[in-house]
Amino acid sequence: MRLATLADGSRDGRLAVVRRDGAAFADAGTIAPCLQAAIDRWDEAEPRLRALAEALDAGRAEATPLDLDRVRAPLPRAYEWIDGSAYLNHVRLVRRARQAEPPPTLTTDPLVYQGGSGVLLGPRDPLPFGARDYGLDFEGEVCVITGDVPLGVAAGEALRHVRLLCLANDVSLRKLIPDELAKGFGFFVGKPATAFSPFAVTPDELGEAWRDGRAHLRLTVRLNGVVAGDLEAGPEMHFSFADLLAHVTRTRALAAGTILGSGTVSNQDPARGVSCLAERRAREQIEFGAARTPFLQVGDRVEIRAAGPDGRDLFGSIDQRVTA
Amino acid sequence: MRLATLADGSRDGRLAVVRRDGAAFADAGTIAPCLQAAIDRWDEAEPRLRALAEALDAGRAEATPLDLDRVRAPLPRAYEWIDGSAYLNHVRLVRRARQAEPPPTLTTDPLVYQGGSGVLLGPRDPLPFGARDYGLDFEGEVCVITGDVPLGVAAGEALRHVRLLCLANDVSLRKLIPDELAKGFGFFVGKPATAFSPFAVTPDELGEAWRDGRAHLRLTVRLNGVVAGDLEAGPEMHFSFADLLAHVTRTRALAAGTILGSGTVSNQDPARGVSCLAERRAREQIEFGAARTPFLQVGDRVEIRAAGPDGRDLFGSIDQRVTA
Repeated sequence: MRLATLADGSRDGRLAVVRRDGAAFADAGTIAPCLQAAIDRWDEAEPRLRALAEALDAGRAEATPLDLDRVRAPLPRAYEWIDGSAYLNHVRLVRRARQAEPPPTLTTDPLVYQGGSGVLLGPRDPLPFGARDYGLDFEGEVCVITGDVPLGVAAGEALRHVRLLCLANDVSLRKLIPDELAKGFGFFVGKPATAFSPFAVTPDELGEAWRDGRAHLRLTVRLNGVVAGDLEAGPEMHFSFADLLAHVTRTRALAAGTILGSGTVSNQDPARGVSCLAERRAREQIEFGAARTPFLQVGDRVEIRAAGPDGRDLFGSIDQRVTA
Repeated sequence: MRLATLADGSRDGRLAVVRRDGAAFADAGTIAPCLQAAIDRWDEAEPRLRALAEALDAGRAEATPLDLDRVRAPLPRAYEWIDGSAYLNHVRLVRRARQAEPPPTLTTDPLVYQGGSGVLLGPRDPLPFGARDYGLDFEGEVCVITGDVPLGVAAGEALRHVRLLCLANDVSLRKLIPDELAKGFGFFVGKPATAFSPFAVTPDELGEAWRDGRAHLRLTVRLNGVVAGDLEAGPEMHFSFADLLAHVTRTRALAAGTILGSGTVSNQDPARGVSCLAERRAREQIEFGAARTPFLQVGDRVEIRAAGPDGRDLFGSIDQRVTA
């Protein structure tokens, strides 16, 4: 089942079930007005949403053509947005480029940060360039959206709290980050609003690609129509979503509707490319002694997508342009 | 006007208006079912809530005795919880005790962190000790709750977005924090769920004490019934709430219902005491070469309150016990 949130003038948008071919939707607002409301009482809402999806695919429910320009983030505002950094190749490359050591606990203690979740961008929303050149960059990621997760959940129990998966563009302002991290309290101004894919999908939509708490999918990132990265999101995710959930619930519980990101998808093989410019610049720094690729400029276009097991554009595509 | 959120079995609780003497409330659920809903359409809800408060104080609305054990956090789940560290005395003391320098931008660039906001504690909720001795500590703080705040708001324009004020106990696990901050991504497991005062109050309730974007109130913190701190929350708040709002909206907008904390209230005069144990331990470290005060233990009781201009317990009291 694939769900989307349609703009209707409200803060949370209106819940819709997406047809299998992605070309049409059925209004689901009578089951739950918005996605948060569905996740709040998932046990009751899920079977009804699935029945609607079946009816839609069978031509038994009213279908409306889907206009992706009307689709918002699955959760236009969320109670938590937590982002990991589970692809260690990314951490190692970026630190090596600035001649810093990765933390000694890199392989045993997950890196996560708490992001702002009150204003989340839709898949077609513009990426604001900012008041100055802050080093605007994208990061292609896979995310899970959880139900209520109790304090201290074990990794082996964590995945049953995963309700949905989606993609994110974890937007970063690279030139603001070093000074901010030097203050010691983590990211804030260096991380503007994050953007999300049009569809949030149930794990069964991934088939065998959802295993070991990882999405074994190919994530494709394009910059101005040219493939920047065509990456395997599964094998090199060192900490699985189960590991990340165990870590982030070590000292507190999570509310239903929490979004947890994988961190920038990254592969060791340079031929795979990158899902963020910082990593390409890090490779250039290591190889040539200086970065050559500029950060995003006004007018640039960023596309992020992942094909499902049957080749469909599983989450819809994030497709954003940088605006002044 | 003072508002409270009563437990009713729902995720967000039920909105209530509190009588002037704090002993009774009027149900406000027909105006807005919960506080978030009121803040979402404040222009419409505020005058109706104020009319109800007036009727309640005049004995013209149905009054129900207020049971503080039924009161939850004003926002039991919020879209953002952002915490500053605006009392520089606290930063300087804690860093001096561990022989570290404060950041060079201490006086010009506010320290803030993004906290978890999906599960927030009520004023009487127990403080879980944790699986081990993690160095459990309290932090007495003043907070504002905002409406929608646009990207890049100027400090001079920021305060008109403040809807309500409340107090917080920003719970910290001191022994987890050094290793976590060393990883460079800020706080996560070192900051379990934060607790809030029973009442969220409109700025006019503070009278002249709300000026220059600061709450010029006396914050009283008791540990096991003994005053640990009796602090001036106004003059030593280096960055005002206006400054903090300008900082946190530098690269993104805030959603209605964002909670922004002042950071641990701290005064230079040691006779004022402390609003967290870390600061007392820092003073001991500097004076005696070692901390003598233990962190919180099971059974300890923490109370945080602030008197209003007329001596009333303005926000109600946070009153929590540490449980195993």
